[in-house]
Amino acid sequence: MKRILIINGPNLNLLGKREPSIYGDISFEDFFQRLKDKNGVELSYFQSNVEGEIIDKLHEVGFSFDGIILNAGGYTHTSVSIADAIAAISSPVIEVHLSNVYAREEYRHNSLIAKNCVGVISGFGLDSYSLAIDYFGAK
Amino acid sequence: MKRILIINGPNLNLLGKREPSIYGDISFEDFFQRLKDKNGVELSYFQSNVEGEIIDKLHEVGFSFDGIILNAGGYTHTSVSIADAIAAISSPVIEVHLSNVYAREEYRHNSLIAKNCVGVISGFGLDSYSLAIDYFGAK
Amino acid sequence: MKRILIINGPNLNLLGKREPSIYGDISFEDFFQRLKDKNGVELSYFQSNVEGEIIDKLHEVGFSFDGIILNAGGYTHTSVSIADAIAAISSPVIEVHLSNVYAREEYRHNSLIAKNCVGVISGFGLDSYSLAIDYFGAK
Amino acid sequence: MKRILIINGPNLNLLGKREPSIYGDISFEDFFQRLKDKNGVELSYFQSNVEGEIIDKLHEVGFSFDGIILNAGGYTHTSVSIADAIAAISSPVIEVHLSNVYAREEYRHNSLIAKNCVGVISGFGLDSYSLAIDYFGAK
Amino acid sequence: MKRILIINGPNLNLLGKREPSIYGDISFEDFFQRLKDKNGVELSYFQSNVEGEIIDKLHEVGFSFDGIILNAGGYTHTSVSIADAIAAISSPVIEVHLSNVYAREEYRHNSLIAKNCVGVISGFGLDSYSLAIDYFGAK
Amino acid sequence: MKRILIINGPNLNLLGKREPSIYGDISFEDFFQRLKDKNGVELSYFQSNVEGEIIDKLHEVGFSFDGIILNAGGYTHTSVSIADAIAAISSPVIEVHLSNVYAREEYRHNSLIAKNCVGVISGFGLDSYSLAIDYFGAK
Amino acid sequence: MKRILIINGPNLNLLGKREPSIYGDISFEDFFQRLKDKNGVELSYFQSNVEGEIIDKLHEVGFSFDGIILNAGGYTHTSVSIADAIAAISSPVIEVHLSNVYAREEYRHNSLIAKNCVGVISGFGLDSYSLAIDYFGAK
Amino acid sequence: MKRILIINGPNLNLLGKREPSIYGDISFEDFFQRLKDKNGVELSYFQSNVEGEIIDKLHEVGFSFDGIILNAGGYTHTSVSIADAIAAISSPVIEVHLSNVYAREEYRHNSLIAKNCVGVISGFGLDSYSLAIDYFGAK
Amino acid sequence: MKRILIINGPNLNLLGKREPSIYGDISFEDFFQRLKDKNGVELSYFQSNVEGEIIDKLHEVGFSFDGIILNAGGYTHTSVSIADAIAAISSPVIEVHLSNVYAREEYRHNSLIAKNCVGVISGFGLDSYSLAIDYFGAK
Amino acid sequence: MKRILIINGPNLNLLGKREPSIYGDISFEDFFQRLKDKNGVELSYFQSNVEGEIIDKLHEVGFSFDGIILNAGGYTHTSVSIADAIAAISSPVIEVHLSNVYAREEYRHNSLIAKNCVGVISGFGLDSYSLAIDYFGAK
Amino acid sequence: MKRILIINGPNLNLLGKREPSIYGDISFEDFFQRLKDKNGVELSYFQSNVEGEIIDKLHEVGFSFDGIILNAGGYTHTSVSIADAIAAISSPVIEVHLSNVYAREEYRHNSLIAKNCVGVISGFGLDSYSLAIDYFGAK
Amino acid sequence: MKRILIINGPNLNLLGKREPSIYGDISFEDFFQRLKDKNGVELSYFQSNVEGEIIDKLHEVGFSFDGIILNAGGYTHTSVSIADAIAAISSPVIEVHLSNVYAREEYRHNSLIAKNCVGVISGFGLDSYSLAIDYFGAK
Repeated sequence: MKRILIINGPNLNLLGKREPSIYGDISFEDFFQRLKDKNGVELSYFQSNVEGEIIDKLHEVGFSFDGIILNAGGYTHTSVSIADAIAAISSPVIEVHLSNVYAREEYRHNSLIAKNCVGVISGFGLDSYSLAIDYFGAK
Repeated sequence: MKRILIINGPNLNLLGKREPSIYGDISFEDFFQRLKDKNGVELSYFQSNVEGEIIDKLHEVGFSFDGIILNAGGYTHTSVSIADAIAAISSPVIEVHLSNVYAREEYRHNSLIAKNCVGVISGFGLDSYSLAIDYFGAK
Repeated sequence: MKRILIINGPNLNLLGKREPSIYGDISFEDFFQRLKDKNGVELSYFQSNVEGEIIDKLHEVGFSFDGIILNAGGYTHTSVSIADAIAAISSPVIEVHLSNVYAREEYRHNSLIAKNCVGVISGFGLDSYSLAIDYFGAK
Repeated sequence: MKRILIINGPNLNLLGKREPSIYGDISFEDFFQRLKDKNGVELSYFQSNVEGEIIDKLHEVGFSFDGIILNAGGYTHTSVSIADAIAAISSPVIEVHLSNVYAREEYRHNSLIAKNCVGVISGFGLDSYSLAIDYFGAK
Repeated sequence: MKRILIINGPNLNLLGKREPSIYGDISFEDFFQRLKDKNGVELSYFQSNVEGEIIDKLHEVGFSFDGIILNAGGYTHTSVSIADAIAAISSPVIEVHLSNVYAREEYRHNSLIAKNCVGVISGFGLDSYSLAIDYFGAK
Repeated sequence: MKRILIINGPNLNLLGKREPSIYGDISFEDFFQRLKDKNGVELSYFQSNVEGEIIDKLHEVGFSFDGIILNAGGYTHTSVSIADAIAAISSPVIEVHLSNVYAREEYRHNSLIAKNCVGVISGFGLDSYSLAIDYFGAK
Repeated sequence: MKRILIINGPNLNLLGKREPSIYGDISFEDFFQRLKDKNGVELSYFQSNVEGEIIDKLHEVGFSFDGIILNAGGYTHTSVSIADAIAAISSPVIEVHLSNVYAREEYRHNSLIAKNCVGVISGFGLDSYSLAIDYFGAK
Repeated sequence: MKRILIINGPNLNLLGKREPSIYGDISFEDFFQRLKDKNGVELSYFQSNVEGEIIDKLHEVGFSFDGIILNAGGYTHTSVSIADAIAAISSPVIEVHLSNVYAREEYRHNSLIAKNCVGVISGFGLDSYSLAIDYFGAK
Repeated sequence: MKRILIINGPNLNLLGKREPSIYGDISFEDFFQRLKDKNGVELSYFQSNVEGEIIDKLHEVGFSFDGIILNAGGYTHTSVSIADAIAAISSPVIEVHLSNVYAREEYRHNSLIAKNCVGVISGFGLDSYSLAIDYFGAK
Repeated sequence: MKRILIINGPNLNLLGKREPSIYGDISFEDFFQRLKDKNGVELSYFQSNVEGEIIDKLHEVGFSFDGIILNAGGYTHTSVSIADAIAAISSPVIEVHLSNVYAREEYRHNSLIAKNCVGVISGFGLDSYSLAIDYFGAK
Repeated sequence: MKRILIINGPNLNLLGKREPSIYGDISFEDFFQRLKDKNGVELSYFQSNVEGEIIDKLHEVGFSFDGIILNAGGYTHTSVSIADAIAAISSPVIEVHLSNVYAREEYRHNSLIAKNCVGVISGFGLDSYSLAIDYFGAK
Repeated sequence: MKRILIINGPNLNLLGKREPSIYGDISFEDFFQRLKDKNGVELSYFQSNVEGEIIDKLHEVGFSFDGIILNAGGYTHTSVSIADAIAAISSPVIEVHLSNVYAREEYRHNSLIAKNCVGVISGFGLDSYSLAIDYFGAK
């Protein structure tokens, strides 16, 4: 059975609480329960608003897990250090986004970390995570 | 049953012929056969190297199909006109790429057309298409 | 009697069909009929989504017609080749736009082809064409 | 009867005096007389080399006139304040230029004020003004 | 008693008249009366749409007044000359803005004049002026 | 009684200790005591050098407090994630700075977070905080 | 005997017709006849104004011909897709230009396609083609 | 006898009053008296802080005087309109500066108006004016 | 005896574990033991992946230690806040890098923190640390 | 008989010695002997690593020789002065490069000197020189 | 008596020979004779096309001469090293140019060396040198 | 015994003479004597203000010496040709600077030559050279 970790970065802990008319009223924890049921993989979940704690977690699991799904939030566009961490570990990482970053502000079009990932899935809401799990499950 | 069209832009007709050690030795036509078998959607396929013919095709199906999967190749980075065509039609479009565009040349990092699409899936090889079909199939 | 050709570029074939609440519900063909009645010039009309076909048409009429009215759509901002074609022919060309390009995205502010035209008329909807015909008619 | 004001900005008071072989030997005042005869609108005319006086005039007439035709000369490319004035008033404004600004220096390609205008007419010499009056007259 | 001058630049004379649903229906003159009542300082007020007249006024009071509150409107972003005038006088100047300039167009984010001022207060509507008076009053 | 939180970012814990000839010899804690006495609001105070802890704190109080005064220090210019946090919460935030950021290095002129704040007060030393409290107190 | 194809892009079909005082009064077809006589290689010739047709032709001959001489005209500066096509085929390509592109507008200084070619020959008029044939002939 | 006009732009009326330790304690008026005595030319002098009044003055004398010496102050770097005025008149203009503009802020390195002047003399304090008069006197 | 602290930033805890063929198979801790033996200074060592913890540590030792050797990893290029911390403390700091940053990606060429350091030593592998200790030891 | 001078700039004296597996093991002097035999022109050769000596040589022969073939090496991208020298002389100059400059670093894509040359030949190794001689020989 | 050295940089040795209809038919040496007669200063003259020789000469005379007049030609825009040399010596340096650099190509607008000079005189032909001598003579 | 050459570029011959209060009153020659005594390596020294002579020297010793220490002065930021020379030779080169280049003007932050060196040591005054010798000595 494959071990997959979902890492959510800054502000994603507010899902379900923040602007429910837009983002829906389920929290990521609730969504995570459904994911665990639906897929034949061993899923775990980590969230932090601290850039360095995300790096710590990448180091911790990055030599043993089968895949990491990373939504680095705002750090996507500013963190050379998370990008370096992904390059240093051996587990493959998929970058995901809830929203379509190209349809937002100019400074969200570029990702510093994507070049070190397998690929990017953005714009499909919570389904972005599901598609990433599908990919790891089928490999 | 949902109707989905895959549109491939310039140079993608060479898949399977060009550098098979990298891209594999199956052509997109062969891959397309497998996709038709595997998914419960009505798939069709169109390829052209001509920017204007891609626009023509988007106009033709863009008010009746349930989804369009577009790999615009090099036009991704240069075509304001394809972007305008996507904005003008009502069918949802997903932008896909075989390779991780962020891991390639600087000028491939930006997409002129992505902002008018539902989302972007890049870096998963031919699986990028499968994931897009999964998304449309589940909607 | 003066011979004038209107050339419309990509996506302008969707006028009347696309977002009628914004662009009105008459197609360019209908509008063109009214133009023919109203002005004392011999008008003809050409539309293509293909950059190279617009160049072909400019070559075809560009040494004999009295004026060309060109709405190059998205190619306005990307086509060095259409600009070169206008420079190569002898018929005067007026660049027109339905919308005020300066009130839209940054990348629509610049026109690669305008420098080789007589002038530019933008922002007056279909009246942009009428004003251009007025100008050629009065010369 | 519609009330239309033409506002000319810096250096346009020299028309007819400056380089007559290029710009012709009629002053704008003479041209203005012909315009008054030819069109069924009530035309008036104002010229100033002072940025703030152009703003004062826009405020003065901008809530009562049916249209304003503005050739802001060099202020076109540098005046955030004139742009703000146009946004603040309710009369529609058309930006006109004698020459084709895209065929001149790079810094003349951008207009700070155009985004707040109805549209732009440039490159038709004094006919740029006539075409603008035609537009307001026909509305 | 401290002498303070408020200088308002271009278009601020339209307050109360322009878009009252947004900016409220009191003019700056009315607001100014309330300020005079509320604060223990000797306030005076000057408005001009002309860049050079603002410079003249800065010269006139800039060696004797205890403080100047300047809302330079659009000149904030374009006037090297007002910036030079502030550097040349000895009275301290506070730059104020009604709106939060960082939440508006990119070209409003930079201020040419702020570097020569004591500080900047922006985004608090007419309260931006009150806060500036508080500061001068308490010094 | 209104609840207001002051959040100080990196290096502001050194106030009073660092270069006392410039910044004065009182620490922010001492200054904070005076603020509590002077204003009729319930003030609290938080400081951290860790970007993610500032985000945690914004989440914690950002749905219940009446106002937040944020001096994000160096994160002002680099943190997309703090900007996103401010956008996600409902309490109004004022950005303050001790120094006039426009009078310092070029890279300090821009603020990534200001666009999501009510407004900005910079350049008045510790009085920048007092003015922000005045604003919240008077609302 | 070596097989060489000359591909001419947009507007080059007008040679001999356009501005004969500058470009001479022989068409490329006439010039091509002389080339066939003069060189010991099997020459063929293709011209199109359509970007995608140039790509189609590169695909068609690019795995069997001994050399391709490409004057992509305006597409030289805008076509990522032609550059990708050259990278995908195995025949060596030489980029040629009639004029010295460095002595023309700034945007003509860069070539998107040159990096995938053997080399570039520009500025020698029709001799640019002859020199390229010499090179292929001597290899 | 040659007629020469010195035009001083914004803030130069403060000379002698502003920072006398740096700029000396003589006003430009006093300096002007000495110039009149020393040179065999008919000198006159004009100063304004208003951009448009400088343009008015250039128009007034620009077809009859033998030379104009212009220190446009801050307008040097921002006024397309003064540059246009110099291009429109026939009298030769010399741009002068008290300080060495290349030794000051980056935005003072460029002059919008210099390209239309005979030449530039900067960095010699009040001697910059004397040298310009020498040049006109000797022509 | 001089007290020197080595601070390593993000991802440097992986040394010896990550890509041993490139970086060698000794961890920084092992290397640190050798350093302690070799030099006549009192060395200590700190590592964190959290930007704010590096700032905390700089504050803690920055008023008492004789020297700090900082390899800020990815934060070198993004952290205004670490740069501010170095400016605020009194101990001299040397920036070191294992690799030659100029031989890597463009965004690694600039250092935000170097301007506040004594100097920079980069490209000598672990010897970069030794050379920095030599410098502090000899002072 | 035509007199042609080849000028080689910095580092080209190392040919044959440097990386023979790439550049071959013949020096430019040996290659030059073959050129002299093969072509019906009077060839001479000059090499210097000093920018000013290349300018001296251009002055010396630039009013009498029939052609100059210049490989300016690294000065191609940095020397305004060599460009000025070519503009000042009357002999035609061809710029040549061994490698395809567009396939190398970004800063090698632009040539400061090319605009003053007849044309450019790059990417053909030592054959770049032969092709240039062919061109001069056939003129 | 004051000792003044004129230093001319690259290509200025061609004066009188190059394009005499534009630059006149006297060489700089002839012009220099006239200067010696006309001014009460001890003049000497040096010319070199080699950047480093200009630096050598600046070092040689830069601690004893009363003034240096430098026309660095193309090195004006590229030489950090000449700029550093001027900063290192104690003799004052005036930068002169024959032509008005602002009326030429964009890259000639900036001077790397001017910031370290007393001032700049450009655009007055050979009179630029005379004016510089006048300045030194009168000091 | 290892052979090491120190190469100093432009203006470094003035050390000890120029601004002794800043740079100290010993010349580089005196400093060099001390270095020879202190280190167990065979040191030699070369200085030139001429870019091409530095290249000549690099060629001369670059295939036989054990190390080169290069302070290229102003050429660091402008010389593609010195960078190419370092790439062409086999001896390792260390770039050194007396001052911390990141604490100086923006244009000194980038080094064109560093990417071809082993590493960079900057900011330690004459100790920068000592540290470089230590490195070569210990290898």
